Amino acid sequence: MKTFTLYERFSRAFHDYPNLSKLVVLFTVSGGGLVAYSDANPISGYQSIFPVETENKKKRVVVLGTGWAGTSFLKNLKNPEYDVQVVSPRNYFAFTPLLPSVTCGTVEARSIVEPIRNIIRKKNMDIRYWEAECFKIDAQNKRIYCRSNKPSNLNGKQEFVVEYDYLVVAMGARSNTFNIPGVEENCKFLKEVEDAQEIRRSVIDCFEKASLPNLSEEERKRILHFVIVGGGPTGVEFAAELHDFVNEDMVKLNPGVKELVKITLLEATDHILGMFDKRITEFAEKKFKREGIDVRTGAMVVKVSDKEISTKERSGEVSSIPYGMAVWSTGIGTRPVIRDFMQQVGQINRRALATDEWLRVDGTDNIYALGDCATINQRKVMEDISAIFNKADKDNSGTLSAKEAREVIMDICERYPQVDLYLKNKQLRDIVDLLKESKKGVEKESIELNIEEFKSALSQVDSQMKNLPATAQVAAQQGAYLADCFNRMEDCEKDPEGPLRFRGSGRHRFRPFRYKHFGQFAPLGGEQTAAQLPGDWVSIGHSSQWLWYSVYASKQVSWRTRMLVISDWTRRFIFGRDSSRI
Amino acid sequence: MKTFTLYERFSRAFHDYPNLSKLVVLFTVSGGGLVAYSDANPISGYQSIFPVETENKKKRVVVLGTGWAGTSFLKNLKNPEYDVQVVSPRNYFAFTPLLPSVTCGTVEARSIVEPIRNIIRKKNMDIRYWEAECFKIDAQNKRIYCRSNKPSNLNGKQEFVVEYDYLVVAMGARSNTFNIPGVEENCKFLKEVEDAQEIRRSVIDCFEKASLPNLSEEERKRILHFVIVGGGPTGVEFAAELHDFVNEDMVKLNPGVKELVKITLLEATDHILGMFDKRITEFAEKKFKREGIDVRTGAMVVKVSDKEISTKERSGEVSSIPYGMAVWSTGIGTRPVIRDFMQQVGQINRRALATDEWLRVDGTDNIYALGDCATINQRKVMEDISAIFNKADKDNSGTLSAKEAREVIMDICERYPQVDLYLKNKQLRDIVDLLKESKKGVEKESIELNIEEFKSALSQVDSQMKNLPATAQVAAQQGAYLADCFNRMEDCEKDPEGPLRFRGSGRHRFRPFRYKHFGQFAPLGGEQTAAQLPGDWVSIGHSSQWLWYSVYASKQVSWRTRMLVISDWTRRFIFGRDSSRI
Repeated sequence: MKTFTLYERFSRAFHDYPNLSKLVVLFTVSGGGLVAYSDANPISGYQSIFPVETENKKKRVVVLGTGWAGTSFLKNLKNPEYDVQVVSPRNYFAFTPLLPSVTCGTVEARSIVEPIRNIIRKKNMDIRYWEAECFKIDAQNKRIYCRSNKPSNLNGKQEFVVEYDYLVVAMGARSNTFNIPGVEENCKFLKEVEDAQEIRRSVIDCFEKASLPNLSEEERKRILHFVIVGGGPTGVEFAAELHDFVNEDMVKLNPGVKELVKITLLEATDHILGMFDKRITEFAEKKFKREGIDVRTGAMVVKVSDKEISTKERSGEVSSIPYGMAVWSTGIGTRPVIRDFMQQVGQINRRALATDEWLRVDGTDNIYALGDCATINQRKVMEDISAIFNKADKDNSGTLSAKEAREVIMDICERYPQVDLYLKNKQLRDIVDLLKESKKGVEKESIELNIEEFKSALSQVDSQMKNLPATAQVAAQQGAYLADCFNRMEDCEKDPEGPLRFRGSGRHRFRPFRYKHFGQFAPLGGEQTAAQLPGDWVSIGHSSQWLWYSVYASKQVSWRTRMLVISDWTRRFIFGRDSSRI
Repeated sequence: MKTFTLYERFSRAFHDYPNLSKLVVLFTVSGGGLVAYSDANPISGYQSIFPVETENKKKRVVVLGTGWAGTSFLKNLKNPEYDVQVVSPRNYFAFTPLLPSVTCGTVEARSIVEPIRNIIRKKNMDIRYWEAECFKIDAQNKRIYCRSNKPSNLNGKQEFVVEYDYLVVAMGARSNTFNIPGVEENCKFLKEVEDAQEIRRSVIDCFEKASLPNLSEEERKRILHFVIVGGGPTGVEFAAELHDFVNEDMVKLNPGVKELVKITLLEATDHILGMFDKRITEFAEKKFKREGIDVRTGAMVVKVSDKEISTKERSGEVSSIPYGMAVWSTGIGTRPVIRDFMQQVGQINRRALATDEWLRVDGTDNIYALGDCATINQRKVMEDISAIFNKADKDNSGTLSAKEAREVIMDICERYPQVDLYLKNKQLRDIVDLLKESKKGVEKESIELNIEEFKSALSQVDSQMKNLPATAQVAAQQGAYLADCFNRMEDCEKDPEGPLRFRGSGRHRFRPFRYKHFGQFAPLGGEQTAAQLPGDWVSIGHSSQWLWYSVYASKQVSWRTRMLVISDWTRRFIFGRDSSRI
């Protein structure tokens, strides 16, 4: 159907000369267009965006958010037995790893967004989308309260209620200001597409303001002092982008600008890119130093006014830095609606919504949370150690034999991934080798442990537990995992595939979520990128930049955005970045 | 004149071979890539954006505005003997004829803008640009007062004064609301790039709002009722774009939307596209009717509230139309700073700044005005008739002979273009044929006219006077004309090239400005465009659309924007328009 429309669109313009039209199509789209053609496959289903009263008895799944987690969930959901409703204030998915590129015009904002309706219309399912913000989750009554963020012209009907059977919370997080005074009012953030666009306009504004005729040299320098707070990958990439923008593009418009611009990167800890390998951190710090980007580590921001940022050094000394524009990128905080919901379900004083290993919110049985708004509250082996022992001790002898241990080890490793990690780190292939450590001198096959000995053997495994980072990669994998669970919900109900329930009876329905780390990039500017890939493999330089280009191009959510991003990069290579205040 | 013929020849060719226009597009596109490289060549001149104290004695030219007139002036200015300063709140030139395409995402906003610094840095001249708004012109003291439109962070130094020797006023106009209550608050305008972006967001917002779950069918219909006030080319093109967007793109996301969307075009006069040929008007009205766009002519808007537009029919009947979004596009009005300046120079109760035929503001001797903010106050022959007669009557005989008349006719036609037009319309090759009309029966060569007879012979010529339309074409030609005058100022001072000064002595320095009309387009949607070309040549349909594509691509101010616009068109052909709220 779509193919026909596409043809029709061309033929309308070319109806008298069909051969010429083919030539033009072939010519204009060259290589990419052919693939795009295959991407534009039949849209089968009819999805009205207007609410249809659902008379059927389908389970109602409500998804909050259209970021990495929510979109990944929607893309992977295949079971037509759900009535899905999506609520998000953004009617698009944004490829957030390219946000720093948007701040200086290397990539256009529109090139990294894909309308959520484009994504859902390709699925033969009941999915409806509403552009609104969920401002309250009522877990008791299984409903959420939503509000349109464009209330004008709606006759006071901007608020509405959606009821659910399952709720998937994927609302992401907000920037964390740590309640430092002046940050909210004076700093720019870099979480949303609009933030990146605003930073872009502000950067151009600073250059334009600094060029006004009646300013002193000192004032120009202050206006062109860009301060980035937070030395994580986002802050570092923005600093690098800005440096490139000044040195590759602005300098062409006025060579004198280079002497006036200063970029400062403030980091509270000892090193920038702390989560990366030491080699990457060192390389980045040296590169920035060489290029004149002032990296100030160990500097805590204590206050931001409209023209100055006050920092406190380790020594306790407080100093003030005059600035023209400040970008705040120090990590994530909890959204108010999530905080409110956490109190409802008895989760107090936590950073994010705690879930079990199946991404279900602790304290609920039909609410799932994934992405930046959630954190997996991994179960400790030591908490369950007696239950594990009892389950494993099949003959109720009060001791665990080598055979008995081997029978449950698969389930233990699946339920408690830290055990698996621990064995791998110790390079032990057999659980009995671990158990033997607390019973030295005994023959491996004739080992028998009582509960105290079993505890002591496993006492160190929980040290392997780590929270997952708040990255796009984690969120996307969680979305895909949860969709897979929803797809097979009925089958797995009948025929559970998960590990043994050590504290209860039977098995878990699903295998718990497992994160696979595919590596991480840190673009450092000047066509150089640092890449840290699994297996402790580190690569820094121009070749990693090309790896970065190809990974980011291939990860785009649609052929449309892929083409746009690639054409943006090409345009930047040929014409440089644009400096219009648009 | 030469271009005219060339154009006409092309038009003929397109008429006979409609596919030729497609070839032109092909050529434009294919040529683009190669030449684009040569366009991105090294910057030749060094221009600091930071003010340099000018010690030299160069004449200071201050240009207000970076629209069609201002940019055309800057592009064509070649004489390095000027110290040029440009003041404009927009640091870019925008290709405004594509603004309606931006409203629905056919073309991206950024694709039609070119940074003004990119344009001026290619010139080996002293040109400085300041992003500020001129809020007062002080003609007495030869200075202007400016204000940065981003005042924050400037320590109160956002205002400054610029002195000039010559002032070029090219500030354009603002939308005219005719002081109708509620228009300013509730309607969108379509003059600036930001306006187009806002309309785009509003259109998407309307679709999103209409899809919210708790609205009645009637409310959805109201929210999806788009009203365009003003049936000029802009309003008509926006209506057509919106109709295409709904029927080509939105309908794919939800087929039901077509029944809810309504587009109404309100026009106070009897026909839309009143300035075009009748055939075009008729075609457009029929096409719109067929497509369900409600064209209501003879409807004056009297009031706009947040949900309703009140109109008054010819019959006096007042009715109210509920709407979701309204776009106001009824013509242009004067900016406050221009109005204030007009009072200073004694121009009261005029629509725009009046200039003479050399674009110099009436009542000043060093201020020029061009583009939409100005209008040429063409001198009537009848005002000067005695002076003309005296000048022509070389032998002071009190009568004008055929020979005497022939000697001055070139100057008369140049000084008073209406005479030239009148002769052409009457198909008279010789002025004496005209003079003969008031002295019938006399042999042509022995004609002798006294002043009264001369007056009577020329009494009808002033009827040919017409104000120039407020179009990009006029503004661009005026900019180029004025730059040419500035380039040759000194030469022409010594060796004037203009016509005789009938009221004074000697000759005018320059030939007066003459507008050459190259035709006008009115895109009507569905890949059809109406084109009205010189020589009363009218073309409507798909081939004109391709002519439109090629003309608009070729008229882009830089190779960068040309490539961007073409790639936007290509993207739209392949993927449709984007509906993300960005």
